[in-house]
Amino acid sequence: MGKLIVVGIGPGNYENMTIKADRALRLCDVIIGYHVYVDLVRERYPDKEFLTTPMTQEMERCRMALDLAKQGKTVAMVCSGDSGIYGMAALIYELRGECSAPGIEVIPGLTAACSGAALLGAPLTHDFAVVSLSDRLTAWEKIEKRLEAAAAADLSIVLYNPASHGRPDHLRRACDILLRHLPEDRLCGVTRNIGREGENKRMLSLGELRSEKVDMFCTVFIGNDMTREIAQKMVTPRGYRDV
Amino acid sequence: MGKLIVVGIGPGNYENMTIKADRALRLCDVIIGYHVYVDLVRERYPDKEFLTTPMTQEMERCRMALDLAKQGKTVAMVCSGDSGIYGMAALIYELRGECSAPGIEVIPGLTAACSGAALLGAPLTHDFAVVSLSDRLTAWEKIEKRLEAAAAADLSIVLYNPASHGRPDHLRRACDILLRHLPEDRLCGVTRNIGREGENKRMLSLGELRSEKVDMFCTVFIGNDMTREIAQKMVTPRGYRDV
Repeated sequence: MGKLIVVGIGPGNYENMTIKADRALRLCDVIIGYHVYVDLVRERYPDKEFLTTPMTQEMERCRMALDLAKQGKTVAMVCSGDSGIYGMAALIYELRGECSAPGIEVIPGLTAACSGAALLGAPLTHDFAVVSLSDRLTAWEKIEKRLEAAAAADLSIVLYNPASHGRPDHLRRACDILLRHLPEDRLCGVTRNIGREGENKRMLSLGELRSEKVDMFCTVFIGNDMTREIAQKMVTPRGYRDV
Repeated sequence: MGKLIVVGIGPGNYENMTIKADRALRLCDVIIGYHVYVDLVRERYPDKEFLTTPMTQEMERCRMALDLAKQGKTVAMVCSGDSGIYGMAALIYELRGECSAPGIEVIPGLTAACSGAALLGAPLTHDFAVVSLSDRLTAWEKIEKRLEAAAAADLSIVLYNPASHGRPDHLRRACDILLRHLPEDRLCGVTRNIGREGENKRMLSLGELRSEKVDMFCTVFIGNDMTREIAQKMVTPRGYRDV
C-alpha cells in the first residue's frame, strides 16, 4: 500500500524547506500539486513523476493523489507555505474519510506569516490573527467580522490572498474596515514573492496600504499599537525592556 | 565585523529545522540561547562555543549576543519554534537600535501553530488567532479581550504558554472566557513536546480542556465551528467540498 505525504514546501526556495520536506520529496515516486508550486521544486527532484492541476481544482488534485497512493505509490502533494494553513491537508483527510488507508503524513512548512515576518523584521512578536481575504470559500461578511474583531483587540494581523484578478479591491475594503479601529499611520508591511525570484518588501502606513497594488503573491502585515520602524525594519516589541 | 543570526530551530527535532537554519548553526562560531533550546542542538554541532542564560534573562542574552557579534564573531541565537513569533528577533533589533552594526539576519522556523497542527491533523485550514496566555509581559485584561474577540469572530485559536509554575490556572480562566461564546463540545487539541522526546497529543472538548493539565511545553488548539474529528484527526474544512 502506498502513502500520501502532504508537504509544506515553505515560501518556495530550497533553503527555507525543512530537512523532512526535502527528504520526503527525494524519496517519493510522484510529486503532485498546483503547477506554480510544482514548478518551484521540479528542477531539484528531476527523476520524479510530476502531476499538476489548475488552481481551482483542489478536489480533483486531492482525489488524484489519494488514488495514486491506493495504487501503491508514495505520493507527495506539495503546498506552498504550510501543508495545513490554507493548505490541502484538511481536504485530503476529508476525502479519505473514516478509512485508515492510504496512510497520510502531514509535513509542516514555513507559512508566509513566519517567512514574510522575517523578511520585514519582527512584526509578529506578540499575539496576532491570520485572515485570508479570499471570499471564494468564505462569505465576505465573515471576513469583515474577523478583521473588525482582530483590530478591536489590538492583534497584529497577517492578510493572506490580499487580491486576485477576480477581486482587485479586497485590500482597500479590508483597510476601510481596519481604519474604523486603527489610525491611518499604523505601521504595515507588504511582502511579495518571499524566497522566490523578484522577492521584495515594503513598509507603509495603513492609510497608504489602502491604495497599494497587491496580487496573489503578496502577504500583508498590519502592526499592533506597539509596532514601529527600527533601522528600516518592522518591529513589534513584546515588552522585555519594560520588565 | 561579526554577525548575529537569529535562528528559529522549529519544535526541536533536526528534521523540522529548515536547511537554512541547519547551515547557519554549522557555520557560526557561537550558539547562544535559553539552556533548554541550546541543549536541543548541542550534540549536532559539537565544535561550537555554547552560551546559555536562564529563561527570564532575555535582555542579558541578547546583549551578550550583540557584544560577541561586535567582537567579530558569527553568533547564532537559537529560538524554539520561530525566531520572530514570541522569539528574540524584535528585542535584538530594539537593542541594536538605529545603528547598522552588527549585521542581523533573521532565519524563520516552524512555529508551534504549524508543527502542532500537523501533529493533530489539520485544525488551522481557515483563519485563526495566536494568543499567549503568559501575563508576564502582557496585562491579563488584554489577553482576555483578545480571547473574547477571537471566539466571537469564529477564529480557530492557538494558545501558546498555556501554563507555567507561576500561573497554573490560566488555561481554565481562558476556557471560561471562551465558553461565553463557544459550546462546551467545541473540538480542541493539546500537543506537548512537539518533535521532542515524549511527544504527545490529545483531542478533547472545550469543556474537558477547562480542567486539562498543561505546562509550558504544551500548545493548545481550539477549533472553529466547522472543526471536527475525522479518523482520529482534528480537521477544519475550508469548504472546498461545498464549491
